[in-house]
Amino acid sequence: MKRDLKKIVSQMTLEEKAGMCSGLDFWHLKHVERLGIPEVMVSDGPHGLRKQDDKGDHLGMNDSIKAVCFPPAALSACSFDRKLMEEMGKTIGKEAQANDVSIVLGPAVNIKRSPLCGRNFEYYSEDPYLAGEIAAAFINGVQSQHVGTSIKHFAANNQEYHRMSNSSEADERTLREIYFPAFETAVKKAQPYTFMCSYNQINGTFASENKWLLTDVLRGDWGFKGYVMSDWGAVNDRVKGLEAGLELEMPSSNGVNDALIVQAVKDGSLKEDILDQAVERILRIIFEYADNRAPQEFTMEKDHEEARHIAEESMVLLKNDGQILPLKASEKVAFIGGFAKKPRFQGGGSSHINCFKITNALDSVPSDAQVTYAEGFPADKDLYDDALAAEAIKAAAAADKVVIFAGLPDSFESEGYDRSHMRLPECQNRLIAEILKVQPNTVIVLHNGSPVELPWLNDIKGLLEAYLGGQAGGTAVANILYGKVNPSGKLAETMPLKLSDNPSYLNFGGGEKVEYREGVFVGYRYYDTKEMDVAYPFGYGLSYTTFACSDLKISNENPTDKDTVTVSVDVTNTGNMAGKEVVQLYVKDCTSSAIRPEKELKGFEKVFLNPGETKTVTMELDKRSFAWYNTELHDWFAASGEYKLLVGTSSRNIRLEGRIHLNSSQELPMHVHMNTTLGELFRNPKTSETAKELTAKYISAMNVGEESSSEAASEAVTEEMTEAMTDSMPLRALVSFGGYSREELTEIIEKLNKLV
Amino acid sequence: MKRDLKKIVSQMTLEEKAGMCSGLDFWHLKHVERLGIPEVMVSDGPHGLRKQDDKGDHLGMNDSIKAVCFPPAALSACSFDRKLMEEMGKTIGKEAQANDVSIVLGPAVNIKRSPLCGRNFEYYSEDPYLAGEIAAAFINGVQSQHVGTSIKHFAANNQEYHRMSNSSEADERTLREIYFPAFETAVKKAQPYTFMCSYNQINGTFASENKWLLTDVLRGDWGFKGYVMSDWGAVNDRVKGLEAGLELEMPSSNGVNDALIVQAVKDGSLKEDILDQAVERILRIIFEYADNRAPQEFTMEKDHEEARHIAEESMVLLKNDGQILPLKASEKVAFIGGFAKKPRFQGGGSSHINCFKITNALDSVPSDAQVTYAEGFPADKDLYDDALAAEAIKAAAAADKVVIFAGLPDSFESEGYDRSHMRLPECQNRLIAEILKVQPNTVIVLHNGSPVELPWLNDIKGLLEAYLGGQAGGTAVANILYGKVNPSGKLAETMPLKLSDNPSYLNFGGGEKVEYREGVFVGYRYYDTKEMDVAYPFGYGLSYTTFACSDLKISNENPTDKDTVTVSVDVTNTGNMAGKEVVQLYVKDCTSSAIRPEKELKGFEKVFLNPGETKTVTMELDKRSFAWYNTELHDWFAASGEYKLLVGTSSRNIRLEGRIHLNSSQELPMHVHMNTTLGELFRNPKTSETAKELTAKYISAMNVGEESSSEAASEAVTEEMTEAMTDSMPLRALVSFGGYSREELTEIIEKLNKLV
Repeated sequence: MKRDLKKIVSQMTLEEKAGMCSGLDFWHLKHVERLGIPEVMVSDGPHGLRKQDDKGDHLGMNDSIKAVCFPPAALSACSFDRKLMEEMGKTIGKEAQANDVSIVLGPAVNIKRSPLCGRNFEYYSEDPYLAGEIAAAFINGVQSQHVGTSIKHFAANNQEYHRMSNSSEADERTLREIYFPAFETAVKKAQPYTFMCSYNQINGTFASENKWLLTDVLRGDWGFKGYVMSDWGAVNDRVKGLEAGLELEMPSSNGVNDALIVQAVKDGSLKEDILDQAVERILRIIFEYADNRAPQEFTMEKDHEEARHIAEESMVLLKNDGQILPLKASEKVAFIGGFAKKPRFQGGGSSHINCFKITNALDSVPSDAQVTYAEGFPADKDLYDDALAAEAIKAAAAADKVVIFAGLPDSFESEGYDRSHMRLPECQNRLIAEILKVQPNTVIVLHNGSPVELPWLNDIKGLLEAYLGGQAGGTAVANILYGKVNPSGKLAETMPLKLSDNPSYLNFGGGEKVEYREGVFVGYRYYDTKEMDVAYPFGYGLSYTTFACSDLKISNENPTDKDTVTVSVDVTNTGNMAGKEVVQLYVKDCTSSAIRPEKELKGFEKVFLNPGETKTVTMELDKRSFAWYNTELHDWFAASGEYKLLVGTSSRNIRLEGRIHLNSSQELPMHVHMNTTLGELFRNPKTSETAKELTAKYISAMNVGEESSSEAASEAVTEEMTEAMTDSMPLRALVSFGGYSREELTEIIEKLNKLV
Repeated sequence: MKRDLKKIVSQMTLEEKAGMCSGLDFWHLKHVERLGIPEVMVSDGPHGLRKQDDKGDHLGMNDSIKAVCFPPAALSACSFDRKLMEEMGKTIGKEAQANDVSIVLGPAVNIKRSPLCGRNFEYYSEDPYLAGEIAAAFINGVQSQHVGTSIKHFAANNQEYHRMSNSSEADERTLREIYFPAFETAVKKAQPYTFMCSYNQINGTFASENKWLLTDVLRGDWGFKGYVMSDWGAVNDRVKGLEAGLELEMPSSNGVNDALIVQAVKDGSLKEDILDQAVERILRIIFEYADNRAPQEFTMEKDHEEARHIAEESMVLLKNDGQILPLKASEKVAFIGGFAKKPRFQGGGSSHINCFKITNALDSVPSDAQVTYAEGFPADKDLYDDALAAEAIKAAAAADKVVIFAGLPDSFESEGYDRSHMRLPECQNRLIAEILKVQPNTVIVLHNGSPVELPWLNDIKGLLEAYLGGQAGGTAVANILYGKVNPSGKLAETMPLKLSDNPSYLNFGGGEKVEYREGVFVGYRYYDTKEMDVAYPFGYGLSYTTFACSDLKISNENPTDKDTVTVSVDVTNTGNMAGKEVVQLYVKDCTSSAIRPEKELKGFEKVFLNPGETKTVTMELDKRSFAWYNTELHDWFAASGEYKLLVGTSSRNIRLEGRIHLNSSQELPMHVHMNTTLGELFRNPKTSETAKELTAKYISAMNVGEESSSEAASEAVTEEMTEAMTDSMPLRALVSFGGYSREELTEIIEKLNKLV
């Protein structure tokens, strides 16, 4: 159904138009009955529906309808599986459609800058490429059901502390390369119905009134077609926001800001065109939903099984010494820790689901498994209980193997505040140490939204990172532990050894300003470039089988920046169990055109293989895969020169390596001036002849070598020094050292500028 | 003799005045005979005279007069001995006076930001307090002889690459806390006759024309009374420079820039007053020298012995497992490595001395010592010579102990270019590994201007960091090796394990701009805060005896910021040999008023003790010892609250700990606005009442708790979340969430601003 939106807008009163730009209440947009504009509802959240009554809050403190809690983003990203994420999106889209929800408020794609960010469990990755691919797949899934998404929180919202007022101070290159691309990819590959701007300021301007962000970049550079809504309460100056490109304020401002808009149009400080355009954008999305309603059926039971499947595909096996896993039904196993019975599977805040059903690992083991249970420590607080501990240690000593279900209690991480440290509750680390004294065959299952320090890592035999597994996560854990499922998740973030290793450690939190001094060196970009030890690297994850990579093929080793390069590699299951491997393609820039990370992820594929089976995996690279953002060009720039293509199964396990030589059509502009160095002139073929002449005269003026008879000033030094100093010599210095007059130099510079 | 400088200036022609503001040639200032202005000479350098003929260069490529090469700054700073540095200054001042040199071009106090900086050997430390104390002592010594100094290179000149054109991009707090204080301390404690501005730009403005730097900070904030000269060729725009506070251009611009000054005065673009003031400042220093000439006598032999003594007091014993040192005359010892015979004891460039005499370790051992020598590898290049190696391995196997004289060849580090890596020549590491296969009793002596990676560290028994020891360094090494001297030097910089550990690693070198993104986290401020392993920490150094610290006394544990706090500690020599210990006092800020390093050096004393002897060492702290530079206040700010006083013998070996509670008279100004958070209001006693009222209404508006019946949303979460979210809630959000109108809030804000 094609509607004439401009006509509808023209029939609205000024007050109606202003009103359309803010919510009716917490969850609904306003309707205008006489013009056929329906009332539509939006709802949290990214991993399941949190549909509240009309007056409900946005903090997850009140009950919402019963629904299915899928695995939060921190886990699902570890699937490294676009198809799976699209399916998850589709299912949530269907649930939304069936529940009259027009827009699902997600996905959340902020980059994990620090493990401390309280909301990391809602975010995908430390890597913008992975986050973008996963987000685009999810959005395509949801929107295939004619339900919109609201990708959030745009942008650079990487902590909870002072999130409504602080300013994320990051240079443009860092924003473009690290904090923006997940949003950009989502627009280009999935065109989300809406964007949700973040609470924070970016370099001193609120996201909610940042024209560069919401209009120049989002619409201009990326081609976004939907509308932007505010995070709940993110509006600072409503009129400024509207001008900047913030169409919808949420929730209702109780008419306060609507009146300011009306006033601004009336007094001429706001052009009515801008308001009209905003309303038109909102209406387009409302009708996109309303005109495509389709009856949907879903059963929560079936979706629960899908949630389990996603968790199984995503949990990450980190350690499996002596193949302690999978457990056998014949083994006497002690499950210890409150999380075995009461798993922590989601986080607090706006994403909190009122689950219709929750399964735990203890109740999900095979019927013939021999499992005893001891609580050991409570799942919800940090309290060492001697009696509980004694019982657990006894159970551990009596068993063949022990699985400790450890993790962070609800109060340790949540929307709304950041963690103050990266440790598990002390009671858990203490009990783990006690158990390791009596039982070496110990496996730990972690329930956490973000990495924790692992002080006992060297002493345990198995480690399963379950993250927050969604309501069926307990079953997924049991199925992996008992080998019903072969794990295939890979870390979407580095597990550092300790908090102070994190690149943002010196500048996290902050007061009014948070300085992103680490720049593009986030996650493995930092750990790998700084050659630091980590607990587990990005992309890491074990399987119950083994894989080999071979036969790297590169379609074109001398591409131009207009070409697409196809990279293929054969993957073989060399073990005895069917399983999945994630092949990762990293690019290393060897051109020295800029300070760049050691390597960056630019492709991945997950592949299923039966024992002995080989498949060829292909991935594609284009200019963007090689480029960095050049703020002088205001564009992505891929320098001519060599790039390494690194194929691996984690950022630290590179199996195959190839090279290409890129022939770029881009050239950085050169402007010769008094402080251009001789070295710069030497390196440009167009100016190198002049550089030679200038250097010859400078060298002769300095009498270099002639009197160099000093004992210690060996010839080697003199030559190397002269070369290096010449390289760094700016033209202006040729007045003092080269026998040139300023006028002569000015003439030479003019000539050179005509050449370049 | 009191001269009427203003009168002399008034008698000069415009051309004479302009001419006085640049050199006559490379080394002399101009004279004006009719007015009695004499021609005076300046000369490199910081650790000995490099007096050249009139046409000489400034790069150390041509011969200068025969002189004494004292230990370069990288070594002498390790003495941690103010008195010793003052003596060294005095001796160099005498030599200068005797050689008609009016100003010695030094000391060089730039902070060691990266081990790669080619000129690090000329710089004192990674710590601004140590660098400042050492520099002030040296300057006081030189100037006691009525010879001036030129402290350099002002400022933020921390690399050689593109040094004449690049811009050091550092925030003001970092400049004030890290890169400026050595200069500031020198002015306040020693008032150097002159300053030498650096080549580089600072945040886009050349040091040579940076008014903020040369006038506002240097003269305004610190009270500098002398004149500023340019580094040789550092002038970019001469007239701008003069206006900024650059009085003297060096070397001569062959009249080019003098003419520009004359022209600018004539066309009115430069006020003649500014020129007059510059000339007056230059004349004051010329006459300060000329009117205080005193015949001086010195013998180079005696100064050579002083150079040896300084080296002995400064070299740092880093490892001495099983007391392999000191060597005994009865032991058969193999000296291996070209540096044993031909030590590297100074660096290339403007500081390069034409030594009248050089001693090496091999010829300086006790007459009854049993030493064999094998070259092993050449001292001047990276070349593994199989024949030399074989001979050395044989000698090593045959000896009781081996001392390998390793180090960096001249071509590896010098003024003019930076190192590209932190390794020793490969030939040396290879031979060391070979020797360790046949001889476990191996000691290594390092000859280097800046740290190197130590891949064999775990396998050797002894390590002596000799740095560049000056012309008598060889004797100093022999005297320490054989226990004639008990080593007492302490590292003036951290020895990192590898280059990538360095805080500037990701941002060193650069192109036109070098970003100091690590901010104040330089050296141990970084390594200690990031809890990183290092090879050896700042302040570290062993002795042949042992020391104990006890009885920490703090004169006032509740000082105000106007008070001086005296800290005393008893040090006891608990070993069998007389020796010296350096007691170091670090301060740790526990007030959370800013992001600060884990600890900062604020005091040190070196003390000599006979076996069994105890002495009390006292150090003083004042406001500045606790303060950080607040760019909003434009002042140093010491917050009220707790500070730890850490007394140790390195930054990682804290022996005693005390605390003070500072009562500051300073208060950070508070300005309440729409984005002030409730937490900020709670923390200020003047606004906390209002914060309570606002919060009560907000909590009730949110209905928190009332409907909180959801199974998983436990009360613990809700409480902690509410508290954290309230803390981070800006006032503006109370429109959406707190039931306030914008008008009400505006009124409340007005009231609050009257309270604070």
